[in-house]
Amino acid sequence: MTWTITAEHIDGLARGAAVLGTGGGGDPYIGALLARQALAGGDVSVVGLDEVPDDAVVLFVAMMGAPTVMVEKLPSLDEVVEPVRALGVHLGRPITHIACAEVGGVNSTIPIAAAAALGLPLIDADGMGRAFPELQMVLPTLYGVTASPLAFSDEKGNTGVLQTVDNAWTERIARVACVEMGCSVMISGFSMSGTQARDSLVSGSLSRCIEIGQAIVGAREEKTDPVAAAVALLNGRELFDGKVVDVQRATTTGFARGRARIDGEGDSSITLQFQNEHLVAEKDGQVLATTPDLILVLEGESGEPITTEALRYGQRVRVIAAPADERWHSAEALAMVGPGYFGYDMPAHRFDGTISVGHGAEAAGEAA
Amino acid sequence: MTWTITAEHIDGLARGAAVLGTGGGGDPYIGALLARQALAGGDVSVVGLDEVPDDAVVLFVAMMGAPTVMVEKLPSLDEVVEPVRALGVHLGRPITHIACAEVGGVNSTIPIAAAAALGLPLIDADGMGRAFPELQMVLPTLYGVTASPLAFSDEKGNTGVLQTVDNAWTERIARVACVEMGCSVMISGFSMSGTQARDSLVSGSLSRCIEIGQAIVGAREEKTDPVAAAVALLNGRELFDGKVVDVQRATTTGFARGRARIDGEGDSSITLQFQNEHLVAEKDGQVLATTPDLILVLEGESGEPITTEALRYGQRVRVIAAPADERWHSAEALAMVGPGYFGYDMPAHRFDGTISVGHGAEAAGEAA
Repeated sequence: MTWTITAEHIDGLARGAAVLGTGGGGDPYIGALLARQALAGGDVSVVGLDEVPDDAVVLFVAMMGAPTVMVEKLPSLDEVVEPVRALGVHLGRPITHIACAEVGGVNSTIPIAAAAALGLPLIDADGMGRAFPELQMVLPTLYGVTASPLAFSDEKGNTGVLQTVDNAWTERIARVACVEMGCSVMISGFSMSGTQARDSLVSGSLSRCIEIGQAIVGAREEKTDPVAAAVALLNGRELFDGKVVDVQRATTTGFARGRARIDGEGDSSITLQFQNEHLVAEKDGQVLATTPDLILVLEGESGEPITTEALRYGQRVRVIAAPADERWHSAEALAMVGPGYFGYDMPAHRFDGTISVGHGAEAAGEAA
Repeated sequence: MTWTITAEHIDGLARGAAVLGTGGGGDPYIGALLARQALAGGDVSVVGLDEVPDDAVVLFVAMMGAPTVMVEKLPSLDEVVEPVRALGVHLGRPITHIACAEVGGVNSTIPIAAAAALGLPLIDADGMGRAFPELQMVLPTLYGVTASPLAFSDEKGNTGVLQTVDNAWTERIARVACVEMGCSVMISGFSMSGTQARDSLVSGSLSRCIEIGQAIVGAREEKTDPVAAAVALLNGRELFDGKVVDVQRATTTGFARGRARIDGEGDSSITLQFQNEHLVAEKDGQVLATTPDLILVLEGESGEPITTEALRYGQRVRVIAAPADERWHSAEALAMVGPGYFGYDMPAHRFDGTISVGHGAEAAGEAA
């Protein structure tokens, strides 16, 4: 199905993307500003994954860096388009489609801005079905799609194109460049054919974001529970209801890292650990959920998603866990995004508290 | 004058380059190994600056990183050629000449290896007339030649091409990438026309290195003083004769930084401060010479140049100061390579102890 994304979709999209962004992906308000500005120049066509021609040239466009910095450094449209332009020159053939690398406040709307500015269609899909902090952490990596050539650019006009031996090296080099360039750059890469995109992306992400975002607002208007509405659409469960009593946060090596404690009734409390995104939720010392499943924080009454950089003392919040795309639970995927990768000595806990055993790659379809 | 560089020139060249390299530029022994290996495949034509056609496409090829790391990580010929190849693709036109960015043990011989492997002529010239630690510190920067597009590559096969807003930003981004990639990468950039090369390079560098290197060996054979022979060719003066009694050295942010103390007769001692290259020489608290003039250390008896990473307790050494290319004493140049840039709160002291006042850019010819 091909449809048109207009300014009316943006609020819902940005809100829903911030929910699925599990605390990362940047401020949805800033993402919405940027997309609205881009759509003022014309609507953007959104095509379903099944409509993308086999020989399409699909590119991810995203912002790389610490969300704590992104909120103070809104990119211009020129900056959004620059890495795609640089990569087009490098690839020597025209780009046909733009796709989102992840869902998240800024990284679901920057591709809209890029598509609008470039006059290209956007695919209703993304590379994760959530947000993750490092650029190799997309399902296409599991399918053998290379991140490089990857272009990056900053607001000053500096640009680079990397060609690396694997996607982890793209992340390493782009990350140090990103930190040197001010902790926030625009990137474009993971060029893939329509066939590769169909195999590896999460289908329907943009529609899903809009649906979730609109359901939260709809519930508010109908005086029903917005959090419950979100939980239902996420097929998730509510882990905790309480008040933020402590937030430790540092922007180090290009990431917003930290932990938050939320106290509930009686003596119970939940601790969330994050690196841009929430990675581990522990209640009274017991692990309730971990990456790759989704852990997210919604404002208790309004259901408004709260990003990790926006967590503040005193907020009344509800913590939700929800299932990730099942392909994130393959053994290969868990090695890339499981708790162990981030330094937590624990197995991956699914949103329902069971242990993820890391099934074979066959569950990732034709994974490479 | 066009001549042919052969394996017989290499020892003299590497030795002389290590003299002019003022302690930096890497181990001349390693540089000589690499050049000999490359020349086994065929000699390299060396052309004078005045013979380079106006419309030539000249590239610098160099190793970037800490000399302390370079000595443990000898590049392969494939690695030497890779950034030139990547840049040729990026520029979309054939490279016609290779030039040295600086003189120094490794960076005078790597371009020979690149020229041999690519079958291109090498220009008898370089971008500094000495060695400096950061990549923007070449005379072409003063003439408006841009470092970017600049390609870098490592031994693993990772490559990048940067396009930056100025040469200082090329240095900043390439430096962090270099550190992440293991503190030593091959780079190529500063593409310039023959006209630009003639305006901005230091003419006759390779010949001068060979002359100095051969004079040192010749003096040894004739039982005359090799150090005096070098001093005469450098138009310099001997600052100090003594024994190395203390060396502090750390490899930080991609550089070999440190200081060495050398004790002489009586209570006199000289302190050398370096960042890859020697930058400041102080005797008994009095500044004798600073960057941009040349400060170099030769083994007391043999006249063998000693790089900063090879300085050791107990070595008998003689410290020499010599004039830099006069263009390094313009106000614009001193802002880029004077003591103040490196954090020393002192004016530039010329090799003869007088103060450099930083004359106008007109002394740099048609400097931009």
